[in-house]
Order: sequence, then structure tokens, then C-alpha cells
Amino acid sequence: MTATPAYDPSNIFAKILRGELPAHKVYEDDKAVAFLDIMPRAPGHTLVIPKNPARNILDIDPEDLAYVAKIAKKVAIAAKAVFAADGVTVQQFNEEAGGQVVFHLHVHVIPRHAGQAMKPAASVMEKPEVLAEHAARLKAALAG
Amino acid sequence: MTATPAYDPSNIFAKILRGELPAHKVYEDDKAVAFLDIMPRAPGHTLVIPKNPARNILDIDPEDLAYVAKIAKKVAIAAKAVFAADGVTVQQFNEEAGGQVVFHLHVHVIPRHAGQAMKPAASVMEKPEVLAEHAARLKAALAG
Repeated sequence: MTATPAYDPSNIFAKILRGELPAHKVYEDDKAVAFLDIMPRAPGHTLVIPKNPARNILDIDPEDLAYVAKIAKKVAIAAKAVFAADGVTVQQFNEEAGGQVVFHLHVHVIPRHAGQAMKPAASVMEKPEVLAEHAARLKAALAG
Repeated sequence: MTATPAYDPSNIFAKILRGELPAHKVYEDDKAVAFLDIMPRAPGHTLVIPKNPARNILDIDPEDLAYVAKIAKKVAIAAKAVFAADGVTVQQFNEEAGGQVVFHLHVHVIPRHAGQAMKPAASVMEKPEVLAEHAARLKAALAG
């Protein structure tokens, strides 16, 4: 067993939160942000993150995790409608052995269609114009 | 897009909640139960479910989802320690296209070890005595 390292504020999601990197945001409030994964495993693949620093499920404040879960539910419902999906796969990875690549807690919300496998993780970068169009539709649904 | 069907109380997790089927429980309170998956994708693979009926993330009461997330965090920390894991993979599937097989909301909490892939879902039934021993250790950690 390896110990959980401390939060490192140089991760790319912390940079997105600080406005140092762009993101295709679909939702934002005082406690959480949701934006599109730029290498979506399926169209509409969205990440929900807390604004407070947290490496993953092991160290996050339970109330922050609960809040992120509620936003993930909203995103799941909206994404299923916007992308005319048949289902939704939710994943949350913790530490490298658990599948985690960026060390700021994030919940993957992935719209799914019957008979269509997800692409491998981090395999294909989506075109910016496609992401922008998807983000606009999902943002509108989440604001509605 | 397919509509979300209503909750069906004949699912096997509802039967576990009603005491009609056994389970290797590791945690229980008035709102949630956690028990071992009998076909673990890795040792210690645990399912966390709400006691209130909910088909999946699409229809669950947000407060019940938030509570299940908090219990999943507790299970993740305990399972990582008990199984000397390096990480934890959390998954939650919604509708058949999203990977769901049992239609009562459940969160998979899977301890992971570096370099060891998960077994395919629902591939190998674990021996009851192994599950009992794992459940006893995890239950003790969660009670501690």
C-alpha cells in the first residue's frame, strides 16, 4: 500500500480553476465546476470537480464530495437528454493504480449509447469546434 | 434516447435490503448499506447502496446520492487500508447502455494494486469463505 500524497496545486484542473488554462465549461457555481473532457470517451463526456482543493476521494471533505455527486447527477440527466443517450457511465479514479491521471478530484460523467463501446481513456483529442458546440448545448440544458 | 423505467422492487439488491437474500455486509446504517460484490473485479470490491428505492443516478433523491457518496468515501479509505491497495476505482453505472445490470443504484468501490488489471465485470464468482473473511476485515475497519 502506498500513502496518499498531499494535494499539488500545479495540476491542470487547479490551473483551470485559477483561469490559467481554458476549458469548455458547462456549469459553474461557488463550489463546483463541470467542463468537457478534451479526450472524450464518448460525445458529451464531462468532468465535475470541486473548487476546494482535493486530490481524490481519499482526502476530499465529505461535504464537498456530496456536493460534487449532486452536480454529477444534474450533469448526467442533462447529458443524457442533450446527447440522446441510452445510459450514463460514471467513473471516479483514485491514485495512479486506481486510474487517476490528474490529481484534483474529478467525476467522469459519460453519456452512453446502446451497442457503442467507450473509446479508450485519453486516446483521441476532440476538435475544439466540436467541443465548443457540445459545451454550448450542455450548458444551455444545465441552465434550463 | 430511451426513457428511464420506473423502479422495480424485484431486483436482487432490493431483496438483500428486505432480507430475502444474503449478503456479505460490511456497513449498514439507517440510510445506506455496503456489501461485497460476489463477483469481485479485485479483492475487496464493495457495493454501496441507498436504502430508499432508486433505479440509478437519474432518479435518485439528490440527498440520498450525496449520502451514498459519503459512505463510498469511508469504504474507499477502509478498503485501501484493509487490502493494502495502491488506489481505488469508483464506478457507477446507469441503464444497460451505461453498464448497469442490477437496477437499484449502487456505487462500486474497487481497491486496486499497481500493475494489476481489474477482472472483467461479473466474470468469476468468489468463494464464500473468502468473501466472509474479506467482509469481516472490512467491517472491522469501518467500525473502528
